[in-house]
Amino acid sequence: MAAKEIGIGLIGMGTVGTGVVKILRERGDTIAARTGLRPVLRQVAVRNLGQMREVALPPEMMTADPQAVIARPDVDIVVELMGGYEPARTLVLKAIESGKHVVTANKAIIALYGQEIFAAAREKGVLVYFEASVGGAIPILAALRESFVANEIRAIFGIVNGTTNYILTRMTEDGMDFGEALAEAVRGGYAEADPTLDLEGIDAAHKLAILASCAFGIPVDMEDVYVEGISEVCPQDISYAREFGYVIKLLAIAKEAGGSIELRVHPTMLSRHHPLASVRETYNAIYVEGDAIGKAMFLGRGAGRMPTASAVVSDIVEAILRSREADFQAERSLYWNRKTIQPMSEVACKFYLRFPIVDQPGVIGKIATVLGSHGISITSVRASLVEMTTNAGHVEMLTHRAGEAAVQQALQEINALPVMRDKSMYLRIEE
Amino acid sequence: MAAKEIGIGLIGMGTVGTGVVKILRERGDTIAARTGLRPVLRQVAVRNLGQMREVALPPEMMTADPQAVIARPDVDIVVELMGGYEPARTLVLKAIESGKHVVTANKAIIALYGQEIFAAAREKGVLVYFEASVGGAIPILAALRESFVANEIRAIFGIVNGTTNYILTRMTEDGMDFGEALAEAVRGGYAEADPTLDLEGIDAAHKLAILASCAFGIPVDMEDVYVEGISEVCPQDISYAREFGYVIKLLAIAKEAGGSIELRVHPTMLSRHHPLASVRETYNAIYVEGDAIGKAMFLGRGAGRMPTASAVVSDIVEAILRSREADFQAERSLYWNRKTIQPMSEVACKFYLRFPIVDQPGVIGKIATVLGSHGISITSVRASLVEMTTNAGHVEMLTHRAGEAAVQQALQEINALPVMRDKSMYLRIEE
Repeated sequence: MAAKEIGIGLIGMGTVGTGVVKILRERGDTIAARTGLRPVLRQVAVRNLGQMREVALPPEMMTADPQAVIARPDVDIVVELMGGYEPARTLVLKAIESGKHVVTANKAIIALYGQEIFAAAREKGVLVYFEASVGGAIPILAALRESFVANEIRAIFGIVNGTTNYILTRMTEDGMDFGEALAEAVRGGYAEADPTLDLEGIDAAHKLAILASCAFGIPVDMEDVYVEGISEVCPQDISYAREFGYVIKLLAIAKEAGGSIELRVHPTMLSRHHPLASVRETYNAIYVEGDAIGKAMFLGRGAGRMPTASAVVSDIVEAILRSREADFQAERSLYWNRKTIQPMSEVACKFYLRFPIVDQPGVIGKIATVLGSHGISITSVRASLVEMTTNAGHVEMLTHRAGEAAVQQALQEINALPVMRDKSMYLRIEE
Repeated sequence: MAAKEIGIGLIGMGTVGTGVVKILRERGDTIAARTGLRPVLRQVAVRNLGQMREVALPPEMMTADPQAVIARPDVDIVVELMGGYEPARTLVLKAIESGKHVVTANKAIIALYGQEIFAAAREKGVLVYFEASVGGAIPILAALRESFVANEIRAIFGIVNGTTNYILTRMTEDGMDFGEALAEAVRGGYAEADPTLDLEGIDAAHKLAILASCAFGIPVDMEDVYVEGISEVCPQDISYAREFGYVIKLLAIAKEAGGSIELRVHPTMLSRHHPLASVRETYNAIYVEGDAIGKAMFLGRGAGRMPTASAVVSDIVEAILRSREADFQAERSLYWNRKTIQPMSEVACKFYLRFPIVDQPGVIGKIATVLGSHGISITSVRASLVEMTTNAGHVEMLTHRAGEAAVQQALQEINALPVMRDKSMYLRIEE
């Protein structure tokens, strides 16, 4: 049975938009199998029709007029990925006005105009999803709104800006000063041409406002968010922090304190034992405390084409499943795939092996010979006595990647050697 | 307007059931405000009616007959929290047969009888939710099924059993052997009276089967999951692992390899730099790799009354929102709460302060005097020269908890002192 189609209109086809087109193309069948409804791209609005694109689309599918995308009767969901304040805000409101569901990755318009946008959506009975606006691939908004619905959230601490986390990582690990680390970030493509919004904490503040709305169920005006950037942090501060057991991170903090909520973004000294302290490079992470869940942390890619596109597509699927077109049976089916399970005997990995032996000349040779005869290569060997007064000892080895079946056969042979005091111990290694 | 009621029937009121009753009581209003529908507990089936309970319920609400709970016409959702294989399986099938939605925390029946249960639910058009069955408060199943729907999942590595992670933590950090660490776990209440299912990896294998079904969309027979427990791990193995940069963790591994899936639970040597390596004590964590998201990790409480109850209630809310009774507008509203935002001037925390000074006698006294006059206590002071040849230096301090307004006023005064070469630097500290 052919799945019913849901029309998707895309506004903006930059980094993230290209990722969304790719995923819809590659995963359309899977989404149809899982939901009973097939997302079909109807039209894409771009700024420059002439530009060469990584993913080619038929010319008739492209337009320079976003209003045309919104106006199409066969578009059910408008996906706004142009970014910035305007015309993004106006277009999203227009889509809602036209009765379309909206999916957006635009943190700026949700943070600044969320109240207006959600009121309009409620009025028109359409859905607005924005998971990709905070934390990229990390499903933190769904967690706060859905999974943690039974909780009073006590605190959120977020590393939600990859550029500043990258710069602080370079300053901390390589002793760079702020300017050197920024230059390094620009060279590596981890900072935008104009990184002001990132460095001054504005981007993190937008995300904090959205996090706080989802966690505490309140509207947030951006003026209520205290913001400081990282440009004044010196190597001296980082070394002093280290000496006292701290690391410096740009944190977005939302904390319940005596019935009201603190909202602040600033470079923060954080105990090096805190789970957020080890979040390095461009990774994002959000730490949450709730009265029922206790402490939890989510770590993942906070930006980039495919992580962000992944979140956008999950919102599209969510909108599909919640839309009027979805019938009640269009639940995600649990078993939609055909894959086989690998027999354990065919699994391969590196191994740690320990042989309890009677210490005598040639014992390592005997063991190694058996391993070699099964094609198992050794990368490291250590022998030790259990106690100085006995000749009971252990031989420990690390191997190259080896097949499970070969290792089990070899161990069985080795266990039968007279030099063995007890059976072998083995542990599989994952890198 | 009074919210429409959704009837909840509970089977089992042990640790988790008690938590669910507590949350429904405390958070019923909030859930009604957010969803437009109010979950109302109709009846609870328990094994022993006479037992004293931490949360008192009216006697007419209690029954020893779970079938009676299922049969009530005013029960829309049956919540199965009795655990074990039977009669849990039969009761869940009976609830489905009676047209009720089911929420369960029972990993054993989902892992073993999931195919039968989901087929029955599909047949009857009812929902079965089981988020609490894996990872306690960590919303990993929702993430895999919903948030990561756009991904081909490549690998899942999970620390999904708190008892064994606690034991391995004690062995690693305190040099205990397995027996000592197990005894310590029993004393601390981190191991059940009969911990066999945990120690032998069976509990983790049940959870792995569920994770794999959600990640890869395939049914899993328990015989296809390779299982080893941790009882053979020796202090010697742990110290050898440490020497080579590894830690030993009981991992549940599901990995795509050449089109088929490896499923295995065994003690594993893992690089100490892997995000899972620092997951200590009874915490659970699940690490996921997907083609679009890249790498992600979820950390949280994997068991315990309130974390598990939190997941159960989130499933109840999900079932409410997806049920026929929910009208389209019964979306979670974003702004359902009334809380004020704390002005930054009223925030308090510990501070790190750095003063760029001209090094001369009495400079620390001058600064400390100003801080003292604003009620700011110092816990640590360090002074250093920028270069030996100049008299330019820094004074660095850590303070006790201090109010933002007091600190800003003090810094303003200190910045005006003639001994200052530049303005003060400050960083807030979060523990």
